Amino acid sequence: MSLPVENITEPFATKLPAKGFAAMAVSEDLVPFSFERRNPGPHDVQIEIAYCGVCHSDLHFVRNDWGMSTFPLVPGHEIVGRIVRVGDHVTKHKVGDTVGIGCLVDSCQECDACKDDQEQFCPNGVMTYGSKEKDSPSMTYGGYSNQIVCNENFVLKVSNKLPLEKVAPLLCAGITTYSPLRRWKVGPGQKVAVIGLGGLGHMAVKIAVAMGADVTVLSTHPHKKADALHLGAHNFIVTRDEVQAASVMNTFDFILDTISAAHDYNFYLGMLRRNGTMVCVGLPGEPAHVPAFTLVFGNKSLAGSLIGGIAETQEMLDFCAEKNITADIELIAMKDINEAFIRMENADVKYRFVIDMASL
Amino acid sequence: MSLPVENITEPFATKLPAKGFAAMAVSEDLVPFSFERRNPGPHDVQIEIAYCGVCHSDLHFVRNDWGMSTFPLVPGHEIVGRIVRVGDHVTKHKVGDTVGIGCLVDSCQECDACKDDQEQFCPNGVMTYGSKEKDSPSMTYGGYSNQIVCNENFVLKVSNKLPLEKVAPLLCAGITTYSPLRRWKVGPGQKVAVIGLGGLGHMAVKIAVAMGADVTVLSTHPHKKADALHLGAHNFIVTRDEVQAASVMNTFDFILDTISAAHDYNFYLGMLRRNGTMVCVGLPGEPAHVPAFTLVFGNKSLAGSLIGGIAETQEMLDFCAEKNITADIELIAMKDINEAFIRMENADVKYRFVIDMASL
Repeated sequence: MSLPVENITEPFATKLPAKGFAAMAVSEDLVPFSFERRNPGPHDVQIEIAYCGVCHSDLHFVRNDWGMSTFPLVPGHEIVGRIVRVGDHVTKHKVGDTVGIGCLVDSCQECDACKDDQEQFCPNGVMTYGSKEKDSPSMTYGGYSNQIVCNENFVLKVSNKLPLEKVAPLLCAGITTYSPLRRWKVGPGQKVAVIGLGGLGHMAVKIAVAMGADVTVLSTHPHKKADALHLGAHNFIVTRDEVQAASVMNTFDFILDTISAAHDYNFYLGMLRRNGTMVCVGLPGEPAHVPAFTLVFGNKSLAGSLIGGIAETQEMLDFCAEKNITADIELIAMKDINEAFIRMENADVKYRFVIDMASL
Repeated sequence: MSLPVENITEPFATKLPAKGFAAMAVSEDLVPFSFERRNPGPHDVQIEIAYCGVCHSDLHFVRNDWGMSTFPLVPGHEIVGRIVRVGDHVTKHKVGDTVGIGCLVDSCQECDACKDDQEQFCPNGVMTYGSKEKDSPSMTYGGYSNQIVCNENFVLKVSNKLPLEKVAPLLCAGITTYSPLRRWKVGPGQKVAVIGLGGLGHMAVKIAVAMGADVTVLSTHPHKKADALHLGAHNFIVTRDEVQAASVMNTFDFILDTISAAHDYNFYLGMLRRNGTMVCVGLPGEPAHVPAFTLVFGNKSLAGSLIGGIAETQEMLDFCAEKNITADIELIAMKDINEAFIRMENADVKYRFVIDMASL
């Protein structure tokens, strides 16, 4: 074989030393952290991480906003890098491949959800960080790190055509917006609106435009207009402007709602055309208040969407490579992550921070 | 021609005397009422009404619950009868035909909604009662009456195979439940739940069973179990029984919610399987409170549905004729309508009152 050194037939007895940045306790700043990962088993690959995107979920986990965090916590689930070792039974990837990892690193592979290629709903799915590893009491550590070990089935192929640092955010922000746009068959002849122009929203605009839809950005901030149009949106509506808002009532076939702060769902549902669907991917703490009248008079739907399955994530990456779509990013050094969290919270980023792991 | 007397070339100068029962003012008992209808124009048919179903909307209109009632009000939009005269340009129907009229008697025929066969969303749609007539300041009067005049395009063909009095409720309760079941492609291999076993719910059970789905009735009333199974449901769940409710969490592909009283949408959304949809056809006064988490973690949808278009109503009537589906009814005399309203409000009817117009 050409690469005998990198091939593995048995899990090593010792573990693999790794380094990264972690929150050592809830809401604390991230600090340098040395830890161990499992050595790659026969079905695993070992990846040297080149870049990792900074998702708002990372900050939610550091703060334990969803009540499920464990510490030390190494965040990061928008991972791209290159394979440096492969297990003996690995068939899908080889050493040197450019690859990505998103929000999931394992699942049972046997349940209905897994069989339907919706591993994100597997009751035994393993998240990329803060989750118990399969068949082990160890917790998973994410992509704010120099390397990662992962079952080959959860490793995505990444085209070499695109700048790798700009691909990283596709692994979460990209698939989270691509999946509902695809499921509802967004395309030519359809009027699509995107609520919010952050990390998710800016990807939604690019993808929906590439799918051929007529795309409007809905925002409370008038100053985002130029950026929205630059990203490819055809229209921009300041939702606080009553005249502008009235002009788009009952017009959209599909609305993608990327807002995580509390907001008035009913107002936006009013902008749906008959038979239209609004999909929320953000998770406000407050429930939506939706009068049945709004849904009934117009055959309208309010739906939710969670990331996407592994096969669909690969489909999204291939689509983005074909259409030359990547994220707009600010590349940062690992040591600047705490400042980046503060800026991200103030929506002061266009549109995604990505950590350069060479800086670790 | 064989029927020269019944054919009309011009609208008559005089109007057509009609009689019925009306609420003369808000919330008053219905009383005998004589009025005039337009004489049939070239595109109209005149129908001798045989039976009219009693829909909960009729009572809402009498009470002006939705703020749009005018008086005198002659309710009734579940109308079946026989054609006694046709306008000269009528091509779809002939004298002697057994026909029906539902919630709509006219629309603009030119807007997007009309062109899409969704006349129920035409901004200039004319409801069967309490609506301004097209090209006339007169109000429409409904089916609690001996006859009605209607544009031929809003007149449905009714099979002679089925008992006519049991067909009447199909014109509203039937199409209101058929339309969402069809739109979401309910069929074999799918688990469907129906919330509520009233006029709408009992039709939903029959239609969903005929479409081949596995049908569960969800009810707060244990005593409805035998009836639910008798109607064809495969399962029955008492939703107040925690063990029973827990047993159906995350199981249904589709839920049809026929409840008009305030209820906990989130509880029922929890019973949807991944990618499932719950459609509400009832109109509670209180908004639904729906956490985004419920929709996102499961790719679930909450939708509304309003009646159905004319073409779809015909499709539903043909489907019911083929499958031998009719409503379970209590036939009443016109004079008993006020008592029937009281019983209907107490859910004391299996499952629809139908007025025998021979009693008028």
